[in-house]
Amino acid sequence: MNGRIQVLGIAGSLRRASYNRGLIRAAEQVVPEGVDFRTFDLLPIPLFNQDVEAEGDPAPVQELKARIGEADALLIAAPEYNYSIPGVLKNAIDWASRPPNSSSLRHKPIGLMGASPGGFGTARSQLALRQVFLFTKSLVLPEPELYVATAYQKFDQDGDLLDDETRRRVRALLEALIDWTRRVGSAARS
Amino acid sequence: MNGRIQVLGIAGSLRRASYNRGLIRAAEQVVPEGVDFRTFDLLPIPLFNQDVEAEGDPAPVQELKARIGEADALLIAAPEYNYSIPGVLKNAIDWASRPPNSSSLRHKPIGLMGASPGGFGTARSQLALRQVFLFTKSLVLPEPELYVATAYQKFDQDGDLLDDETRRRVRALLEALIDWTRRVGSAARS
Amino acid sequence: MNGRIQVLGIAGSLRRASYNRGLIRAAEQVVPEGVDFRTFDLLPIPLFNQDVEAEGDPAPVQELKARIGEADALLIAAPEYNYSIPGVLKNAIDWASRPPNSSSLRHKPIGLMGASPGGFGTARSQLALRQVFLFTKSLVLPEPELYVATAYQKFDQDGDLLDDETRRRVRALLEALIDWTRRVGSAARS
Amino acid sequence: MNGRIQVLGIAGSLRRASYNRGLIRAAEQVVPEGVDFRTFDLLPIPLFNQDVEAEGDPAPVQELKARIGEADALLIAAPEYNYSIPGVLKNAIDWASRPPNSSSLRHKPIGLMGASPGGFGTARSQLALRQVFLFTKSLVLPEPELYVATAYQKFDQDGDLLDDETRRRVRALLEALIDWTRRVGSAARS
Repeated sequence: MNGRIQVLGIAGSLRRASYNRGLIRAAEQVVPEGVDFRTFDLLPIPLFNQDVEAEGDPAPVQELKARIGEADALLIAAPEYNYSIPGVLKNAIDWASRPPNSSSLRHKPIGLMGASPGGFGTARSQLALRQVFLFTKSLVLPEPELYVATAYQKFDQDGDLLDDETRRRVRALLEALIDWTRRVGSAARS
Repeated sequence: MNGRIQVLGIAGSLRRASYNRGLIRAAEQVVPEGVDFRTFDLLPIPLFNQDVEAEGDPAPVQELKARIGEADALLIAAPEYNYSIPGVLKNAIDWASRPPNSSSLRHKPIGLMGASPGGFGTARSQLALRQVFLFTKSLVLPEPELYVATAYQKFDQDGDLLDDETRRRVRALLEALIDWTRRVGSAARS
Repeated sequence: MNGRIQVLGIAGSLRRASYNRGLIRAAEQVVPEGVDFRTFDLLPIPLFNQDVEAEGDPAPVQELKARIGEADALLIAAPEYNYSIPGVLKNAIDWASRPPNSSSLRHKPIGLMGASPGGFGTARSQLALRQVFLFTKSLVLPEPELYVATAYQKFDQDGDLLDDETRRRVRALLEALIDWTRRVGSAARS
Repeated sequence: MNGRIQVLGIAGSLRRASYNRGLIRAAEQVVPEGVDFRTFDLLPIPLFNQDVEAEGDPAPVQELKARIGEADALLIAAPEYNYSIPGVLKNAIDWASRPPNSSSLRHKPIGLMGASPGGFGTARSQLALRQVFLFTKSLVLPEPELYVATAYQKFDQDGDLLDDETRRRVRALLEALIDWTRRVGSAARS
């Protein structure tokens, strides 16, 4: 895998001022040389319904699958709801994992991070996400893990990251994801 | 807790001919004396968005919370998507667990079942659901567990249950849920 | 269930000055009226080996099963090792869940707590334990959850609890366990 | 990573005629060219006790850590006890993950398989193991997953594998592990 790396950033929350949207923006600001960073907003993705799917993927779902397919790696920032993955994010994965183009997640390198107001920083939700991406045969980056606890202290009211230590950790995660993608991503291309 | 028991059945799939909708209908057909069984269809529930919530719960969400609040117990039938809870169901729980009326899930007795085409019958998804209902402080029935594997052999094309053994197990689960509700449900009322 | 309640406390660590042994001792010091509190030390329990079991349970295993069988409820305090249950504790459960007398865990009310030096206070390990006790059909207390983080600040070098807030939470957990036992424990006796 | 690959096989059961010991032997019989396959028997590993550790790792633990350190990859076959990892195996990991030489598991490629008498073939236990190896920053092979259900039909009374389809899947897993090791294992060496 030579040349530029395409990373697709996805936030698992629809709230405008979401901490996790803020994490994705923070990643965008520290993109290393040679990397293109795009984002996909889950807002237009409808609820998964196999009867709807049978008549063809809705346009936003087609777009999601295409963006995932083009990307060399995904970077996901998600809150934790009820000790698990936000329904909004799980729903998008449910669409993306289905044919046609279900193979877009297969062997896809994925980095995970999450911010929460509480003290555990999405620890349980990230474990739940790893289980989901086992099914899709995606290649989730093993480390570093990035849990942003007590997020209300680290973001402003617009969801912009204020905390430099967290910013360094986001950058380290992104760099590790790119290394991981260069190392394991060839599987997806060969 | 004397008098009639109200059970609310919820299927975690939007597909019309869903096996899991079929499980809920099967439960409806074996309701014991003294029990009222209603269902709630997740189809109109929108994707959770805290910005939307800030302007007031959408009508279908209000309806969902009210139905859960009135019920003495929930019976949930859900498929497994990507080794976990369907986004559609998780999304509904995400709404229901939020104020106002977030307390509707607190101490609520809940029975779980699930059908899948594969061999494991939603084993992993049900574990994931138990984790979610720990956060909401709901009282998930410990046993019997009901995993309906190779569901294509047990339901017809409309999603109606054909298999008598599964029907007996649905009935046993519903009866155990009612016993459990009489035993632990008083917490919700006191 | 009238009369006295017997609670058996088990620490999931063999270290003498273990924080989790300290939690069990803290519970012992706040036992309410009408409750008898005993402890069982896992030190003499050997590693599970079905070939050994085939010749009869070793004496410490017989003792463990007998103590569990006599108890109306268990109170378990365990550290988190490698994001999961300590092998020492899991090994003891593996023995206890086997015939003869495997039924000792069935319908047994169980309260969970845990202390760890890190920031998450055994959150992941307790989820893993709940999964184990689903198999054994035990009745794990849903709430309160008790996670004691940064334990080195709350215990002395002998593992004795210094922190009053934690002591209050241990007491609240024990009281909730006793209520839960009175409510659901009848299943074990009927 | 040129040259020969060293794979260390570990069975998570102490029973002589264990199905999972049989899986490890089956792997040994299909080792590809250029691969050395050794095994480590967990029988002499004592229960983890930090007070014992403080006086120095017991000899069998030193041996375990050394074997893991020398190996380029681990192949683990484990049963499922109580919906989770056998205590015997978790206990060995608890030792191996501790200093000195805790780094032996770091970045170590690991393949997982498991056999059980029931219908799910250790699905839940393997998920639990992946969670553990996230903590240790090991590199668990994402696919293929290998669940050997209804094992009593596929092994003889000595635990020797009789089933050719399972043997093919063991071979495919081992080959995938070797590919994975060549791809990601360099991290461990660089």
